[in-house]
Amino acid sequence: MKIEFMHCAIAEARKALENSEVPVGAIVVRNSQVIGRGYNQREKHNDPTAHAEILAIRQAASYLGSWRLTDCEIYVTLEPCPMCAGAIVNSRIQTIVYGAYDLKSGAVNSLYNILSDKRLNHQVEIYSGICEEQCQALLKEFFDQLRN
Amino acid sequence: MKIEFMHCAIAEARKALENSEVPVGAIVVRNSQVIGRGYNQREKHNDPTAHAEILAIRQAASYLGSWRLTDCEIYVTLEPCPMCAGAIVNSRIQTIVYGAYDLKSGAVNSLYNILSDKRLNHQVEIYSGICEEQCQALLKEFFDQLRN
Repeated sequence: MKIEFMHCAIAEARKALENSEVPVGAIVVRNSQVIGRGYNQREKHNDPTAHAEILAIRQAASYLGSWRLTDCEIYVTLEPCPMCAGAIVNSRIQTIVYGAYDLKSGAVNSLYNILSDKRLNHQVEIYSGICEEQCQALLKEFFDQLRN
Repeated sequence: MKIEFMHCAIAEARKALENSEVPVGAIVVRNSQVIGRGYNQREKHNDPTAHAEILAIRQAASYLGSWRLTDCEIYVTLEPCPMCAGAIVNSRIQTIVYGAYDLKSGAVNSLYNILSDKRLNHQVEIYSGICEEQCQALLKEFFDQLRN
């Protein structure tokens, strides 16, 4: 786990903010190399699956030519929702590092524990609350703008 | 809920079987019109997110020009996994009709109840076990082939 990669994920989240999307960013790393990037583009693409994590995972899988992202880490600014937590399990990612907790739909620690569920066929190493304040500040900025 | 649409989903699953993919098919219906189709293409596209439901949802959203699939039903041959159940919640689909139960990773009734969880911001009407035998027979055919 390297803090510099969380800063890359935060940079992705900023792109979402600049595009008036809920600011969430994600990157996939393998052997200290970024192989997938994504930021939330649900509105732009009219795609309910276009969350940061899904886009980063798809890019990484395309780069590797494999749906198995074994030996990969994902860095994401917000605790993944059930869809994205499920995608992380499905792609066999080894480690997740995330920033802000999502008490309303987080599926890693808040509402569900999908990444550590022993009934599923894969478990993920979890680092929670990394750069939490910075990640949350971006979300607050977005929702403050929305209200004004 | 119309049984003919489940037959369309089964036809999609057959395409997966013909392509040596785990045979799962899905369709999205709005006003009795099919607006999205998908079958599992994880291996072909090297994409861990290329499950039948995700592909059908993305096609339907693209057709409607909106990520909100309100007033839509999804028909799928197998109980969705956490990723796909999460995508169904995220896309605000009204109704799900599914065939076979998935005791190992089903997230509608078997391991989780993501589509009826009142803590999430959307709930989905559920019809389970529709054409269950036909849907399960396809899966059995695939895994029997794999073993031989």
